[in-house]
Amino acid sequence: MPERLRIFSLNCWGIRYLSKHCAQRYAMIADLLCKEQHDVVLLQEVWSEKDFLFLKKKLVGTHPYSHYFKSGFFGSGLAAFSKHRIHDAFFYKYTLNGYPYMAHHGDWFGGKAVGKILLNISGLVVHVFVTHLHAEYCREQDSYLPHRVVQAWELQNFIRHTSAGADVVVLGGDLNMHPTDLGIRLLQSYTGLKDCFNETAYFDGCEQGFTHITDNPFTLKQELVPFGGGIRIDYVFYKGSEKVDVSCESLSTTKGTIPGQPFPYSDHEVLTTKLVLFPANEGKGESNQEKDYTAGKLSELVNIVTEARTEVKVGLHCAERMRYTAARTGIMGLALLLLELAIAVVPWFSLGTEQPFPKASFYLLGALCFAILFSTLLLYIFYGMEVKALQGTEDQMRLAVGSLQERLKEFHKGVSEGHSLREPDGHDD
Amino acid sequence: MPERLRIFSLNCWGIRYLSKHCAQRYAMIADLLCKEQHDVVLLQEVWSEKDFLFLKKKLVGTHPYSHYFKSGFFGSGLAAFSKHRIHDAFFYKYTLNGYPYMAHHGDWFGGKAVGKILLNISGLVVHVFVTHLHAEYCREQDSYLPHRVVQAWELQNFIRHTSAGADVVVLGGDLNMHPTDLGIRLLQSYTGLKDCFNETAYFDGCEQGFTHITDNPFTLKQELVPFGGGIRIDYVFYKGSEKVDVSCESLSTTKGTIPGQPFPYSDHEVLTTKLVLFPANEGKGESNQEKDYTAGKLSELVNIVTEARTEVKVGLHCAERMRYTAARTGIMGLALLLLELAIAVVPWFSLGTEQPFPKASFYLLGALCFAILFSTLLLYIFYGMEVKALQGTEDQMRLAVGSLQERLKEFHKGVSEGHSLREPDGHDD
Repeated sequence: MPERLRIFSLNCWGIRYLSKHCAQRYAMIADLLCKEQHDVVLLQEVWSEKDFLFLKKKLVGTHPYSHYFKSGFFGSGLAAFSKHRIHDAFFYKYTLNGYPYMAHHGDWFGGKAVGKILLNISGLVVHVFVTHLHAEYCREQDSYLPHRVVQAWELQNFIRHTSAGADVVVLGGDLNMHPTDLGIRLLQSYTGLKDCFNETAYFDGCEQGFTHITDNPFTLKQELVPFGGGIRIDYVFYKGSEKVDVSCESLSTTKGTIPGQPFPYSDHEVLTTKLVLFPANEGKGESNQEKDYTAGKLSELVNIVTEARTEVKVGLHCAERMRYTAARTGIMGLALLLLELAIAVVPWFSLGTEQPFPKASFYLLGALCFAILFSTLLLYIFYGMEVKALQGTEDQMRLAVGSLQERLKEFHKGVSEGHSLREPDGHDD
Repeated sequence: MPERLRIFSLNCWGIRYLSKHCAQRYAMIADLLCKEQHDVVLLQEVWSEKDFLFLKKKLVGTHPYSHYFKSGFFGSGLAAFSKHRIHDAFFYKYTLNGYPYMAHHGDWFGGKAVGKILLNISGLVVHVFVTHLHAEYCREQDSYLPHRVVQAWELQNFIRHTSAGADVVVLGGDLNMHPTDLGIRLLQSYTGLKDCFNETAYFDGCEQGFTHITDNPFTLKQELVPFGGGIRIDYVFYKGSEKVDVSCESLSTTKGTIPGQPFPYSDHEVLTTKLVLFPANEGKGESNQEKDYTAGKLSELVNIVTEARTEVKVGLHCAERMRYTAARTGIMGLALLLLELAIAVVPWFSLGTEQPFPKASFYLLGALCFAILFSTLLLYIFYGMEVKALQGTEDQMRLAVGSLQERLKEFHKGVSEGHSLREPDGHDD
């Protein structure tokens, strides 16, 4: 008998005192979850632990198991609730996540990450991942793009490396990327994860599956109008294994306003999906992703990783320039300090001569020089770490491309050998 | 026919311009590796990429595949060379790793991590991990102990979660922990990894397997005398799988001085081990660690995780106190600034009154206040992140203990049911 798995995912927009109607919305979310009793609930932007504890208390009857992923300064905002026992949890904080001095964007302070919980549902090992990637503040000039590409790379790496023993893999969250963006393509083609919106048998929700729409009273209309009234940036992905076939029976989203409620649950729409798990016919199940690659898929993947590598290189160039600017400014600050000290020292040698400039200005200038030196030192260290992280990712991507190309070569060799076996008269180059 | 796997591990002590005879030692290491041709070479403290590239060039004939793990400001110092193609690489940077203001210890700037490479040796999937944990500067009052326990926790989590698909797992590196230390017990009992020194059939090396000894001319004798002339802090661990049995045929270490060489390869000793892999009898191989737990092992593991949790709590208490101190100092700085401004404002209202204190002192005091405010803000953010990381680890540990206790309960239930089945006259409580 097939097993059904109902997943709920929502970016809760839970910034206490800043998000509108925060407490009321959490109460509404808790009521909805109590009523609907999904198997797994994946939440993002639960920034305050108090709000998590409020939900935990409310859901104790329906979802007795939960995990809150703490990270960064505020926390990652990620939370998971489950009807089934959570056997294990793991967590990967993304190496790059914006800049601390961009405090008004706040992403750096959140310590964005991917969290993983391990469930056992009717004897099946289900790995559930929840994540939230760096926000996109300006699509035309997106200075965070290299960071988001690195995050997507680390996300696919984390999922691939940690889910070898899984019968079913589920990933939900706010990826802050449109469906055709590089990061989504990278994630899907490398891990073999399927997008519920593309696979679902039945869909009920916003046009094109939008999850951030103008019809939602909490969104800034003018930001979304250029995209045709909405964007799809929240996702639920899944994949099966050799043992289990998974299909998506239904997917639904809320549509801005909620009938009978004064306002929606959040500025993002709710995603709800129903997955059906059934035992795979022996040897006929979705084979291991590693074996499942065809030549076409492999060369597509090579292209995508190469594209990602280019993006990382752009980011690297920019980070190196910033590090250089920090170093140059620091050296100028140091030169100014030395010059000032030299001027101050001259009258000290020729006794009787008066100080060339007033004490107050002297101290003020000195303090300014120290401030420049200290802040450029911090920036130099920060950009140095950004450079190392980007270089490290680029190295991994280069290794991956080499390895994929090797497999492609072996694949072609295998095919051509197969051909020559079948066509003994054929020419072998 | 059994397959042999020769592993080399060394902490290279590669701080350019600071470590003694750095360049000569790298040349010696390269010669040794070229001659010995181990399958896998795991190096730590290769702090400079130039030195990695030097080795890469020298080893191109014997070890054509390599990966250098970049992280933090200086890099993680981790490097791997292999005779076999590296198919994939992954990397996990530890969440906690000392303090940036402890610049003379330098660990924070290294961005300590665990690196993973994936090899395919004669059809076997071999996962090789290399790591270097935070140094121990004072064993009696080790303020970094909670950080190292968190690192050991993350290391075992990373290995457990990423090696489900492995036929053979190898971990090598400088763990900066003695064999009976909490972190080593945590790592071994949770992952099932075996210590080469304990398992080897043949051993040739320093007494008790020491890898950091007084006989080495580069070590500080007085630091090691209390430990009986040496400590064992470098390790090679391994485990097999259901498919492959692994045993350790031999382990050897260098013994301080090298015959025919003016000085040793490093301030640590070289570890060389030979593992033998042979196909497991069907169903009789080392079973999956998850199934292999006995009641005794499970309750031992619960105790170890509980002990680790206590250590993390101690660290948490300390981090919270430091965060509080930073906040209090910052508030005092702000109060001082406000007081100064108030004093300055008074004569401004009552025109004609002279400034109560000279301009120079006024500006100096102001600059001091700003410096206090800025640095306490940075410290507050840093300690806030440390608190979140420790809390997160403690949550994971609590979840793990709960899950392990649940399994222990099921185990006991299973045993008692088994008993009552076998002894129908037995009493069932």
